Amino acid sequence: MKFLRFLSQHGTSYGFKEGETVLEIHENDYLSPEPEVIGEHKLPDVKILPPVEPSKVVCVGLNYRDHAAELGMEIPEEPVIFLKPPTAVTGHLDSIVYPEMSSEVDYEVELAAVISRRARKVKREDADEFIAGYTVLNDVTARDLQRRDGQWTRAKSFDTFCPMGPFIETSVDPHVLDISLELNGEIRQSSNTSNMIFQVPELLEFISHIMTLEPGDVIATGTPPGVGQMMPGDRVRAMIEGVGVLENRVVG
Amino acid sequence: MKFLRFLSQHGTSYGFKEGETVLEIHENDYLSPEPEVIGEHKLPDVKILPPVEPSKVVCVGLNYRDHAAELGMEIPEEPVIFLKPPTAVTGHLDSIVYPEMSSEVDYEVELAAVISRRARKVKREDADEFIAGYTVLNDVTARDLQRRDGQWTRAKSFDTFCPMGPFIETSVDPHVLDISLELNGEIRQSSNTSNMIFQVPELLEFISHIMTLEPGDVIATGTPPGVGQMMPGDRVRAMIEGVGVLENRVVG
Repeated sequence: MKFLRFLSQHGTSYGFKEGETVLEIHENDYLSPEPEVIGEHKLPDVKILPPVEPSKVVCVGLNYRDHAAELGMEIPEEPVIFLKPPTAVTGHLDSIVYPEMSSEVDYEVELAAVISRRARKVKREDADEFIAGYTVLNDVTARDLQRRDGQWTRAKSFDTFCPMGPFIETSVDPHVLDISLELNGEIRQSSNTSNMIFQVPELLEFISHIMTLEPGDVIATGTPPGVGQMMPGDRVRAMIEGVGVLENRVVG
Repeated sequence: MKFLRFLSQHGTSYGFKEGETVLEIHENDYLSPEPEVIGEHKLPDVKILPPVEPSKVVCVGLNYRDHAAELGMEIPEEPVIFLKPPTAVTGHLDSIVYPEMSSEVDYEVELAAVISRRARKVKREDADEFIAGYTVLNDVTARDLQRRDGQWTRAKSFDTFCPMGPFIETSVDPHVLDISLELNGEIRQSSNTSNMIFQVPELLEFISHIMTLEPGDVIATGTPPGVGQMMPGDRVRAMIEGVGVLENRVVG
Protein backbone atom coordinates (compact mmCIF):
# COMPACT_ATOMS: atom_id res chain seq x y z
CA MET A 1 0.00 0.00 0.00
CA LYS A 2 1.05 3.57 -0.65
CA PHE A 3 0.39 5.72 2.41
CA LEU A 4 0.58 9.51 2.39
CA ARG A 5 0.11 12.58 4.53
CA PHE A 6 -1.74 15.51 2.99
CA LEU A 7 -3.47 18.77 3.79
CA SER A 8 -7.26 18.82 3.87
CA GLN A 9 -9.67 21.47 5.17
CA HIS A 10 -9.13 19.86 8.62
CA GLY A 11 -5.35 20.32 8.49
CA THR A 12 -2.86 17.45 8.37
CA SER A 13 -4.61 14.31 7.16
CA TYR A 14 -3.64 10.70 6.51
CA GLY A 15 -4.55 8.27 3.78
CA PHE A 16 -3.49 5.78 1.17
CA LYS A 17 -3.51 5.95 -2.59
CA GLU A 18 -5.67 3.78 -4.84
CA GLY A 19 -5.19 4.75 -8.47
CA GLU A 20 -5.86 8.48 -8.62
CA THR A 21 -7.88 8.45 -5.41
CA VAL A 22 -6.74 9.20 -1.85
CA LEU A 23 -8.69 7.21 0.73
CA GLU A 24 -8.58 9.13 4.01
CA ILE A 25 -7.93 7.26 7.28
CA HIS A 26 -7.45 8.06 10.98
CA GLU A 27 -3.94 9.08 12.06
CA ASN A 28 -3.58 5.97 14.19
CA ASP A 29 -4.33 3.75 11.19
CA TYR A 30 -1.39 5.31 9.31
CA LEU A 31 0.95 2.60 7.97
CA SER A 32 -1.25 -0.16 9.46
CA PRO A 33 -2.30 -3.11 7.26
CA GLU A 34 -6.10 -2.71 7.45
CA PRO A 35 -6.96 0.97 7.87
CA GLU A 36 -10.59 2.08 8.14
CA VAL A 37 -11.54 4.46 5.31
CA ILE A 38 -13.25 7.66 6.53
CA GLY A 39 -13.15 9.85 3.43
CA GLU A 40 -12.20 10.16 -0.21
CA HIS A 41 -10.29 12.78 -2.24
CA LYS A 42 -8.96 13.06 -5.76
CA LEU A 43 -5.17 12.77 -5.71
CA PRO A 44 -4.56 15.91 -7.82
CA ASP A 45 -6.77 17.94 -5.41
CA VAL A 46 -4.69 17.34 -2.27
CA LYS A 47 -1.50 19.08 -1.20
CA ILE A 48 0.86 16.22 -0.37
CA LEU A 49 3.02 16.61 2.78
CA PRO A 50 6.27 14.80 3.62
CA PRO A 51 5.16 11.22 4.46
CA VAL A 52 6.70 11.40 7.96
CA GLU A 53 8.13 13.99 10.35
CA PRO A 54 11.37 12.29 11.37
CA SER A 55 13.23 13.17 14.57
CA LYS A 56 16.34 12.29 12.59
CA VAL A 57 17.38 11.38 9.07
CA VAL A 58 20.40 9.07 9.06
CA CYS A 59 22.16 8.88 5.71
CA VAL A 60 24.78 6.53 4.36
CA GLY A 61 27.71 7.67 2.22
CA LEU A 62 29.04 5.71 -0.74
CA ASN A 63 26.72 2.66 -0.86
CA TYR A 64 26.41 1.68 -4.55
CA ARG A 65 29.06 -0.50 -6.20
CA ASP A 66 28.59 1.31 -9.51
CA HIS A 67 28.93 4.72 -7.80
CA ALA A 68 32.15 3.60 -6.05
CA ALA A 69 33.49 2.40 -9.44
CA GLU A 70 32.53 5.75 -11.05
CA LEU A 71 34.49 7.61 -8.36
CA GLY A 72 37.44 5.17 -8.50
CA MET A 73 36.95 4.48 -4.78
CA GLU A 74 37.32 1.20 -2.93
CA ILE A 75 34.28 -0.60 -1.56
CA PRO A 76 34.08 0.55 2.09
CA GLU A 77 34.34 -2.05 4.84
CA GLU A 78 31.61 -0.48 6.93
CA PRO A 79 29.01 2.21 6.27
CA VAL A 80 29.92 5.86 6.78
CA ILE A 81 26.93 7.72 8.21
CA PHE A 82 25.88 11.35 8.49
CA LEU A 83 22.77 13.19 9.67
CA LYS A 84 20.42 15.62 7.97
CA PRO A 85 18.37 17.77 10.40
CA PRO A 86 14.55 17.50 10.55
CA THR A 87 14.35 21.11 9.32
CA ALA A 88 15.76 20.02 5.94
CA VAL A 89 12.73 17.82 5.23
CA THR A 90 10.32 19.00 2.55
CA GLY A 91 7.66 17.30 0.45
CA HIS A 92 6.69 16.32 -3.07
CA LEU A 93 6.25 19.35 -5.36
CA ASP A 94 7.79 21.66 -2.74
CA SER A 95 10.69 23.91 -3.74
CA ILE A 96 14.36 23.20 -3.16
CA VAL A 97 15.80 26.58 -2.17
CA TYR A 98 19.28 27.32 -3.54
CA PRO A 99 21.28 28.79 -0.62
CA GLU A 100 23.33 31.96 -0.95
CA MET A 101 26.39 30.22 0.57
CA SER A 102 26.72 27.74 -2.31
CA SER A 103 27.15 27.85 -6.07
CA GLU A 104 27.08 24.08 -6.67
CA VAL A 105 23.97 22.25 -5.51
CA ASP A 106 23.63 18.58 -6.52
CA TYR A 107 20.79 16.03 -6.63
CA GLU A 108 21.19 12.49 -5.23
CA VAL A 109 18.26 10.06 -5.56
CA GLU A 110 18.06 7.55 -2.68
CA LEU A 111 15.79 4.81 -1.40
CA ALA A 112 14.75 5.67 2.19
CA ALA A 113 13.54 3.22 4.83
CA VAL A 114 11.01 4.51 7.37
CA ILE A 115 11.21 3.17 10.94
CA SER A 116 7.99 1.74 12.39
CA ARG A 117 8.92 1.33 16.06
CA ARG A 118 11.76 2.15 18.41
CA ALA A 119 14.85 0.33 17.19
CA ARG A 120 17.83 -0.26 19.44
CA LYS A 121 20.56 -2.83 18.71
CA VAL A 122 18.43 -4.64 16.14
CA LYS A 123 19.79 -7.79 14.48
CA ARG A 124 19.68 -7.79 10.69
CA GLU A 125 17.41 -10.84 10.59
CA ASP A 126 14.79 -8.92 12.61
CA ALA A 127 14.96 -5.78 10.44
CA ASP A 128 11.51 -6.21 8.85
CA GLU A 129 9.81 -5.81 12.23
CA PHE A 130 11.22 -2.28 12.50
CA ILE A 131 10.63 -0.98 8.97
CA ALA A 132 7.24 0.48 8.05
CA GLY A 133 8.07 0.87 4.36
CA TYR A 134 10.05 2.79 1.79
CA THR A 135 9.96 6.19 0.18
CA VAL A 136 12.01 8.26 -2.27
CA LEU A 137 14.49 10.83 -0.92
CA ASN A 138 16.65 13.40 -2.67
CA ASP A 139 19.83 13.94 -0.62
CA VAL A 140 20.42 17.47 -1.90
CA THR A 141 24.06 18.46 -1.36
CA ALA A 142 26.05 21.70 -1.72
CA ARG A 143 29.05 20.00 -3.31
CA ASP A 144 31.34 23.04 -3.05
CA LEU A 145 30.74 23.28 0.72
CA GLN A 146 31.14 19.52 1.13
CA ARG A 147 34.62 19.78 -0.40
CA ARG A 148 35.53 22.91 1.55
CA ASP A 149 34.43 21.68 5.00
CA GLY A 150 35.63 18.07 4.85
CA GLN A 151 32.70 17.36 7.17
CA TRP A 152 29.48 16.92 5.19
CA THR A 153 26.99 18.39 7.64
CA ARG A 154 26.76 21.97 6.37
CA ALA A 155 26.56 20.82 2.73
CA LYS A 156 23.66 18.46 3.51
CA SER A 157 21.67 20.46 6.09
CA PHE A 158 20.16 23.51 4.44
CA ASP A 159 16.39 23.96 4.81
CA THR A 160 14.62 22.09 1.93
CA PHE A 161 17.69 19.88 1.24
CA CYS A 162 15.77 16.69 2.13
CA PRO A 163 12.76 16.28 -0.18
CA MET A 164 10.91 13.05 0.65
CA GLY A 165 7.85 11.27 -0.64
CA PRO A 166 5.26 11.32 -2.04
CA PHE A 167 4.30 7.95 -0.50
CA ILE A 168 5.46 5.25 1.89
CA GLU A 169 5.16 1.92 0.09
CA THR A 170 4.68 -0.80 2.69
CA SER A 171 4.99 -3.92 0.49
CA VAL A 172 8.10 -3.94 -1.64
CA ASP A 173 11.40 -5.83 -1.79
CA PRO A 174 13.90 -2.95 -1.42
CA HIS A 175 16.79 -4.68 -3.18
CA VAL A 176 15.42 -5.29 -6.71
CA LEU A 177 14.22 -1.82 -7.71
CA ASP A 178 15.18 0.39 -10.62
CA ILE A 179 16.24 3.77 -9.24
CA SER A 180 16.72 6.82 -11.43
CA LEU A 181 16.63 10.60 -11.58
CA GLU A 182 15.55 12.99 -14.32
CA LEU A 183 16.66 16.61 -14.54
CA ASN A 184 14.40 18.68 -16.81
CA GLY A 185 13.21 15.48 -18.46
CA GLU A 186 16.68 13.99 -19.09
CA ILE A 187 17.81 10.85 -17.27
CA ARG A 188 20.91 11.63 -15.16
CA GLN A 189 21.02 8.75 -12.67
CA SER A 190 19.99 5.18 -13.46
CA SER A 191 20.77 2.04 -11.49
CA ASN A 192 19.13 -0.69 -9.46
CA THR A 193 19.00 -1.05 -5.68
CA SER A 194 20.59 -4.51 -6.13
CA ASN A 195 23.86 -2.54 -6.48
CA MET A 196 23.79 -1.46 -2.83
CA ILE A 197 26.95 -2.40 -0.93
CA PHE A 198 25.23 -2.58 2.48
CA GLN A 199 21.62 -3.73 2.25
CA VAL A 200 18.85 -2.30 4.41
CA PRO A 201 18.91 -4.95 7.19
CA GLU A 202 22.67 -4.52 7.61
CA LEU A 203 22.31 -0.71 7.71
CA LEU A 204 19.57 -0.95 10.33
CA GLU A 205 21.73 -3.26 12.44
CA PHE A 206 24.74 -0.95 12.14
CA ILE A 207 22.91 2.31 12.82
CA SER A 208 20.73 0.96 15.64
CA HIS A 209 23.90 -0.16 17.45
CA ILE A 210 24.98 3.49 17.44
CA MET A 211 21.76 5.37 18.11
CA THR A 212 18.20 4.50 19.02
CA LEU A 213 15.87 5.03 16.06
CA GLU A 214 12.37 6.37 16.77
CA PRO A 215 9.14 5.71 14.83
CA GLY A 216 9.16 7.91 11.72
CA ASP A 217 12.94 8.18 11.62
CA VAL A 218 14.46 7.67 8.21
CA ILE A 219 17.49 5.80 6.87
CA ALA A 220 18.64 7.05 3.47
CA THR A 221 20.56 4.27 1.76
CA GLY A 222 22.97 6.11 -0.55
CA THR A 223 22.89 7.22 -4.16
CA PRO A 224 23.86 5.51 -7.45
CA PRO A 225 26.21 7.05 -10.09
CA GLY A 226 25.48 10.18 -12.06
CA VAL A 227 25.12 12.84 -9.37
CA GLY A 228 25.36 16.36 -10.75
CA GLN A 229 24.34 19.97 -10.45
CA MET A 230 20.92 21.61 -10.38
CA MET A 231 20.24 25.29 -11.09
CA PRO A 232 17.35 27.57 -10.12
CA GLY A 233 14.43 26.86 -12.44
CA ASP A 234 15.34 23.18 -12.84
CA ARG A 235 12.75 20.46 -12.35
CA VAL A 236 14.07 17.28 -10.71
CA ARG A 237 12.27 13.93 -10.56
CA ALA A 238 13.62 11.17 -8.32
CA MET A 239 12.08 7.82 -9.23
CA ILE A 240 12.06 4.37 -7.65
CA GLU A 241 10.22 1.49 -9.26
CA GLY A 242 7.09 0.58 -7.30
CA VAL A 243 7.80 3.21 -4.64
CA GLY A 244 7.09 6.56 -6.30
CA VAL A 245 8.17 9.63 -8.20
CA LEU A 246 9.32 12.60 -6.11
CA GLU A 247 9.27 15.86 -8.03
CA ASN A 248 10.66 19.20 -6.95
CA ARG A 249 11.61 22.49 -8.52
CA VAL A 250 14.74 24.43 -7.64
CA VAL A 251 14.25 28.11 -6.80
CA GLY A 252 16.83 30.88 -6.34
CA MET B 1 18.47 32.62 36.93
CA LYS B 2 19.21 28.91 36.79
CA PHE B 3 16.28 27.02 35.30
CA LEU B 4 15.96 23.24 35.38
CA ARG B 5 13.71 20.36 34.41
CA PHE B 6 13.26 17.60 36.96
CA LEU B 7 11.12 14.61 37.88
CA SER B 8 8.53 15.03 40.60
CA GLN B 9 5.64 12.75 41.62
CA HIS B 10 3.68 14.48 38.81
CA GLY B 11 6.23 13.56 36.14
CA THR B 12 8.34 16.10 34.24
CA SER B 13 8.42 19.36 36.18
CA TYR B 14 9.98 22.78 35.73
CA GLY B 15 11.66 25.13 38.12
CA PHE B 16 14.56 27.36 38.98
CA LYS B 17 17.29 27.01 41.56
CA GLU B 18 17.74 29.30 44.56
CA GLY B 19 20.62 28.08 46.72
CA GLU B 20 19.84 24.46 47.54
CA THR B 21 16.12 24.90 46.80
CA VAL B 22 14.19 24.21 43.60
CA LEU B 23 11.25 26.54 43.16
CA GLU B 24 8.70 24.80 40.94
CA ILE B 25 6.96 26.74 38.16
CA HIS B 26 4.48 26.09 35.33
CA GLU B 27 5.93 24.71 32.11
CA ASN B 28 4.97 27.87 30.21
CA ASP B 29 6.94 30.01 32.70
CA TYR B 30 10.09 28.00 31.90
CA LEU B 31 12.96 30.34 30.96
CA SER B 32 10.74 33.41 31.41
CA PRO B 33 11.97 36.35 33.52
CA GLU B 34 9.23 36.42 36.17
CA PRO B 35 7.91 32.91 36.72
CA GLU B 36 5.15 32.26 39.26
CA VAL B 37 6.30 29.85 42.00
CA ILE B 38 3.90 26.94 42.58
CA GLY B 39 5.96 24.60 44.73
CA GLU B 40 9.23 24.00 46.52
CA HIS B 41 11.67 21.08 46.65
CA LYS B 42 15.11 20.44 48.10
CA LEU B 43 17.66 20.28 45.27
CA PRO B 44 19.23 16.97 46.44
CA ASP B 45 15.75 15.36 46.50
CA VAL B 46 14.91 15.87 42.82
CA LYS B 47 16.06 13.81 39.85
CA ILE B 48 17.38 16.40 37.39
CA LEU B 49 16.48 15.93 33.70
CA PRO B 50 18.27 17.39 30.67
CA PRO B 51 17.33 21.09 30.70
CA VAL B 52 15.79 20.93 27.21
CA GLU B 53 14.69 18.31 24.67
CA PRO B 54 16.32 19.66 21.52
CA SER B 55 15.12 18.73 18.04
CA LYS B 56 18.76 19.13 17.06
CA VAL B 57 22.15 19.73 18.64
CA VAL B 58 24.46 21.66 16.33
CA CYS B 59 28.12 21.46 17.30
CA VAL B 60 31.14 23.42 16.19
CA GLY B 61 34.54 21.83 15.55
CA LEU B 62 37.84 23.47 16.50
CA ASN B 63 36.72 26.76 18.12
CA TYR B 64 39.33 27.57 20.80
CA ARG B 65 42.57 29.34 19.89
CA ASP B 66 44.47 27.42 22.57
CA HIS B 67 43.05 24.09 21.33
CA ALA B 68 44.06 24.91 17.72
CA ALA B 69 47.56 25.77 18.99
CA GLU B 70 47.72 22.49 20.96
CA LEU B 71 46.84 20.54 17.79
CA GLY B 72 49.20 22.61 15.61
CA MET B 73 46.26 23.55 13.39
CA GLU B 74 45.54 26.87 11.70
CA ILE B 75 42.70 29.07 12.89
CA PRO B 76 39.76 28.13 10.62
CA GLU B 77 38.23 30.84 8.43
CA GLU B 78 34.68 29.71 9.08
CA PRO B 79 33.10 27.31 11.57
CA VAL B 80 32.90 23.60 10.74
CA ILE B 81 29.64 22.18 12.05
CA PHE B 82 28.29 18.72 12.81
CA LEU B 83 25.13 17.34 14.38
CA LYS B 84 24.50 15.10 17.39
CA PRO B 85 21.10 13.34 17.35
CA PRO B 86 18.46 14.07 20.02
CA THR B 87 18.78 10.45 21.19
CA ALA B 88 22.33 11.19 22.40
CA VAL B 89 21.09 13.71 24.99
CA THR B 90 21.27 12.68 28.63
CA GLY B 91 21.23 14.57 31.91
CA HIS B 92 23.26 15.48 34.98
CA LEU B 93 24.29 12.40 37.00
CA ASP B 94 23.12 10.06 34.21
CA SER B 95 25.52 7.44 32.89
CA ILE B 96 27.66 7.73 29.78
CA VAL B 97 27.50 4.26 28.22
CA TYR B 98 30.75 3.04 26.65
CA PRO B 99 29.81 1.49 23.29
CA GLU B 100 31.05 -1.92 22.16
CA MET B 101 32.19 -0.46 18.81
CA SER B 102 34.82 1.81 20.41
CA SER B 103 37.83 1.46 22.65
CA GLU B 104 38.68 5.17 22.92
CA VAL B 105 35.96 7.42 24.31
CA ASP B 106 36.91 11.04 25.04
CA TYR B 107 35.37 13.89 27.05
CA GLU B 108 35.04 17.43 25.64
CA VAL B 109 33.59 20.18 27.87
CA GLU B 110 31.65 22.83 25.95
CA LEU B 111 29.50 25.89 26.57
CA ALA B 112 26.09 25.34 24.95
CA ALA B 113 23.64 28.06 23.91
CA VAL B 114 19.93 27.21 24.10
CA ILE B 115 17.62 28.71 21.44
CA SER B 116 14.56 30.59 22.74
CA ARG B 117 12.55 31.07 19.54
CA ARG B 118 12.64 30.03 15.91
CA ALA B 119 15.83 31.41 14.40
CA ARG B 120 16.24 31.75 10.65
CA LYS B 121 18.91 33.94 9.02
CA VAL B 122 19.58 35.85 12.23
CA LYS B 123 22.08 38.73 12.19
CA ARG B 124 24.77 38.53 14.85
CA GLU B 125 23.70 41.84 16.42
CA ASP B 126 20.24 40.34 17.07
CA ALA B 127 21.56 37.10 18.58
CA ASP B 128 20.45 37.86 22.17
CA GLU B 129 16.80 37.83 21.12
CA PHE B 130 17.14 34.19 20.10
CA ILE B 131 19.16 32.78 23.00
CA ALA B 132 17.39 31.70 26.18
CA GLY B 133 20.57 31.01 28.10
CA TYR B 134 23.56 28.74 28.50
CA THR B 135 24.29 25.29 29.84
CA VAL B 136 27.21 22.86 30.12
CA LEU B 137 27.59 20.10 27.53
CA ASN B 138 30.01 17.20 27.26
CA ASP B 139 30.59 16.39 23.58
CA VAL B 140 31.50 12.76 24.20
CA THR B 141 33.43 11.37 21.22
CA ALA B 142 34.65 7.91 20.19
CA ARG B 143 38.03 9.15 18.96
CA ASP B 144 39.02 5.88 17.28
CA LEU B 145 35.83 5.91 15.17
CA GLN B 146 36.24 9.61 14.40
CA ARG B 147 39.67 8.87 12.91
CA ARG B 148 38.49 5.76 11.08
CA ASP B 149 35.37 7.29 9.47
CA GLY B 150 36.73 10.71 8.52
CA GLN B 151 33.14 11.88 9.04
CA TRP B 152 32.46 12.61 12.71
CA THR B 153 28.82 11.56 12.93
CA ARG B 154 29.19 7.97 14.17
CA ALA B 155 31.83 8.95 16.73
CA LYS B 156 29.60 11.67 18.21
CA SER B 157 26.14 10.06 17.98
CA PHE B 158 25.97 7.12 20.40
CA ASP B 159 23.13 7.15 22.90
CA THR B 160 24.25 9.06 26.07
CA PHE B 161 27.07 10.85 24.18
CA CYS B 162 25.52 14.28 24.81
CA PRO B 163 25.24 14.93 28.58
CA MET B 164 23.77 18.41 29.19
CA GLY B 165 22.87 20.47 32.22
CA PRO B 166 22.15 20.65 35.06
CA PHE B 167 20.78 24.19 34.53
CA ILE B 168 20.13 26.85 31.92
CA GLU B 169 21.64 30.09 33.19
CA THR B 170 19.74 32.99 31.63
CA SER B 171 21.93 35.92 32.74
CA VAL B 172 25.57 35.48 31.93
CA ASP B 173 28.12 36.94 29.52
CA PRO B 174 29.18 33.81 27.59
CA HIS B 175 32.63 35.11 26.59
CA VAL B 176 34.34 35.68 29.95
CA LEU B 177 33.87 32.33 31.69
CA ASP B 178 36.37 29.86 33.08
CA ILE B 179 35.69 26.47 31.54
CA SER B 180 37.23 23.25 32.83
CA LEU B 181 36.85 19.51 33.20
CA GLU B 182 37.82 17.13 35.98
CA LEU B 183 38.32 13.39 35.50
CA ASN B 184 38.22 11.49 38.80
CA GLY B 185 39.00 14.72 40.64
CA GLU B 186 41.97 15.76 38.45
CA ILE B 187 41.77 18.83 36.22
CA ARG B 188 42.21 17.81 32.57
CA GLN B 189 40.82 20.77 30.62
CA SER B 190 41.11 24.39 31.73
CA SER B 191 40.58 27.51 29.66
CA ASN B 192 38.32 30.53 29.34
CA THR B 193 35.50 31.10 26.86
CA SER B 194 37.31 34.31 25.83
CA ASN B 195 39.53 31.95 23.77
CA MET B 196 36.69 31.08 21.39
CA ILE B 197 37.53 31.75 17.74
CA PHE B 198 33.91 32.30 16.68
CA GLN B 199 31.77 33.87 19.39
CA VAL B 200 28.18 32.89 20.03
CA PRO B 201 26.48 35.64 17.95
CA GLU B 202 28.66 34.79 14.95
CA LEU B 203 27.90 31.07 15.34
CA LEU B 204 24.17 31.76 15.55
CA GLU B 205 24.34 33.91 12.41
CA PHE B 206 26.32 31.24 10.54
CA ILE B 207 24.20 28.26 11.57
CA SER B 208 20.83 30.00 11.18
CA HIS B 209 21.76 30.83 7.58
CA ILE B 210 22.08 27.07 6.98
CA MET B 211 19.19 25.64 8.97
CA THR B 212 16.24 26.97 10.91
CA LEU B 213 16.77 26.57 14.66
CA GLU B 214 13.75 25.70 16.80
CA PRO B 215 13.08 26.63 20.46
CA GLY B 216 15.10 24.27 22.66
CA ASP B 217 17.69 23.56 19.98
CA VAL B 218 21.26 23.71 21.17
CA ILE B 219 24.48 25.14 19.77
CA ALA B 220 27.62 23.57 21.31
CA THR B 221 30.48 26.01 20.93
CA GLY B 222 33.57 23.79 20.82
CA THR B 223 36.03 22.52 23.40
CA PRO B 224 39.28 23.93 24.84
CA PRO B 225 42.61 21.98 25.00
CA GLY B 226 43.19 18.86 27.04
CA VAL B 227 40.68 16.39 25.61
CA GLY B 228 41.41 12.81 26.53
CA GLN B 229 40.08 9.38 27.28
CA MET B 230 37.54 8.15 29.81
CA MET B 231 37.17 4.56 30.98
CA PRO B 232 34.25 2.69 32.54
CA GLY B 233 34.08 3.63 36.23
CA ASP B 234 35.41 7.14 35.65
CA ARG B 235 33.64 10.18 37.08
CA VAL B 236 33.71 13.24 34.82
CA ARG B 237 32.78 16.80 35.86
CA ALA B 238 32.37 19.48 33.20
CA MET B 239 32.40 22.95 34.78
CA ILE B 240 31.63 26.44 33.54
CA GLU B 241 31.92 29.43 35.83
CA GLY B 242 28.50 30.82 36.73
CA VAL B 243 26.70 28.25 34.56
CA GLY B 244 27.05 24.94 36.36
CA VAL B 245 28.80 21.66 37.04
CA LEU B 246 27.69 18.70 34.91
CA GLU B 247 28.68 15.37 36.44
CA ASN B 248 28.43 11.94 34.85
CA ARG B 249 29.82 8.48 35.41
CA VAL B 250 31.07 6.24 32.62
CA VAL B 251 29.67 2.70 32.57
CA GLY B 252 30.75 -0.31 30.52
